[in-house]
Amino acid sequence: MKTPITLLGLGSMGRALATAWLAAGHPVTVWNRTPGKEPAGAAVAATAAEAVAANRLVVVCLLDDASVESVLASTDLDGRDLVNLTTNTPGEGRVRAEWAVQRGARFLDGGIMVPPAMVATPAGFVLYSGSRESFDEHRAVLSAVARPEFTGDDPGRAALLDVALLSAMTGLFGGIVHAYAVTAGEVPPTEFAPMLAGFLTAMSGVTPQGVGERLASGDHTTGVASTLAMQTAASGTLLRTAGEQGVSTELIEPYLALMERRVAEGHGDEGSSGLVGGLGVTAGG
Amino acid sequence: MKTPITLLGLGSMGRALATAWLAAGHPVTVWNRTPGKEPAGAAVAATAAEAVAANRLVVVCLLDDASVESVLASTDLDGRDLVNLTTNTPGEGRVRAEWAVQRGARFLDGGIMVPPAMVATPAGFVLYSGSRESFDEHRAVLSAVARPEFTGDDPGRAALLDVALLSAMTGLFGGIVHAYAVTAGEVPPTEFAPMLAGFLTAMSGVTPQGVGERLASGDHTTGVASTLAMQTAASGTLLRTAGEQGVSTELIEPYLALMERRVAEGHGDEGSSGLVGGLGVTAGG
Repeated sequence: MKTPITLLGLGSMGRALATAWLAAGHPVTVWNRTPGKEPAGAAVAATAAEAVAANRLVVVCLLDDASVESVLASTDLDGRDLVNLTTNTPGEGRVRAEWAVQRGARFLDGGIMVPPAMVATPAGFVLYSGSRESFDEHRAVLSAVARPEFTGDDPGRAALLDVALLSAMTGLFGGIVHAYAVTAGEVPPTEFAPMLAGFLTAMSGVTPQGVGERLASGDHTTGVASTLAMQTAASGTLLRTAGEQGVSTELIEPYLALMERRVAEGHGDEGSSGLVGGLGVTAGG
Repeated sequence: MKTPITLLGLGSMGRALATAWLAAGHPVTVWNRTPGKEPAGAAVAATAAEAVAANRLVVVCLLDDASVESVLASTDLDGRDLVNLTTNTPGEGRVRAEWAVQRGARFLDGGIMVPPAMVATPAGFVLYSGSRESFDEHRAVLSAVARPEFTGDDPGRAALLDVALLSAMTGLFGGIVHAYAVTAGEVPPTEFAPMLAGFLTAMSGVTPQGVGERLASGDHTTGVASTLAMQTAASGTLLRTAGEQGVSTELIEPYLALMERRVAEGHGDEGSSGLVGGLGVTAGG
């Protein structure tokens, strides 16, 4: 028999996970605060405590970390393998790990890098950190919903990488939205799409590597093809064009302002890596 | 003999262009407001008027559009093919085109999508718009510095696409800088780089296409894998994590705020394409 799974939380992601595990032949016991969202084929527990008692492998995918604490408070976690797929911060992940271990559980925190509609497809992946033993034992089960990647023993690591990637995506999406807004009414969006995709794909392939290498070396100037001075020279044109097109500059202005500050401080010969320290941290790993 | 070229402006980009054309065997006549920056092998004109008189093909790569107007004011453009590679707005490009045509020139506006250090390499390209005849006649010359792409008769089109792509890049770079800042001190940057590059490359390949299709159809909800409601559900975690790591949220906050506004207006089931209208324009091409 395939490993039976308990799943707490049936939001859109929880339902997608339950459906994927059921489709892969795993018995699944579910509980949700609001009943009526159970997928066909799942065993429905009356309480969270009953659901946790049913199986050793317990997956939680709830609204937030506070929900995880309150829902699990009434359950017996002793001997359980707890996999927390709730969106959380690294700090929350670490506190929850300690809390779970104190209650006798092995703990894995996970960051799901795929939307619900793409669970159980080759797209996307889930980042895990925490108990390596628990991960190794359940790797096959976890693989049924999305490619699992173990990122380290620190239970906060998965959430940190999850948030970092989603934050980077936020920047990318903001850039895409601004680009479509500024071309709206003049360039048909389906004509602009391949050009935009090609350009951003090329930049996405090389920029993280270059920035990462400079952060690692601490040398922000050597080998920089496009310096902050060159980039800021075009800032005025970017802002004025938005003005001509009647588009708000809110999505591009903060980065332009950050570059201006760095250039004003005498670092115009640096690349983008020189800006990382300007966000209030000491750069480097 | 290869087509002789006059080039006005010897900033870092102008010098890179002159060097590339000289290396490709073109006679190049240069002029710059400040002397002493001429690449070896170039003929040096004493005045802009003398430089423009020397050749039919005249390329200008100056500080800004105001410089183009003032430098060319003293020259005779009659019968010239003017290629303006100065960074400008679409509106400036259109005004300059009319101005040049009135003075008897054919006009091409160009947006250079490659840093100076990568001129005459396979990387990058230059967007052109304006006189199709002039572009077709000089395509081989233009190819010597970077792959030329003609984008339309509207002389503002090249600048519009240039600015749109650079604005999108600004968003992407902001996301990358934030991602490195938030992981600094915990994840070695060279370890994070391939994960970040892989994720952003995947998103860059699919997102512009999806957003473009929805803008074209005007249907912002059908087939959306990750809705604004789903994305905003994670916003608090992104902001709190930045707080935990001591990183400013200035680069990600505007996009999160824009999403929140759209969701609050009842459009949580839309994808990112639904935000384009919120930047102050009517979406669609």
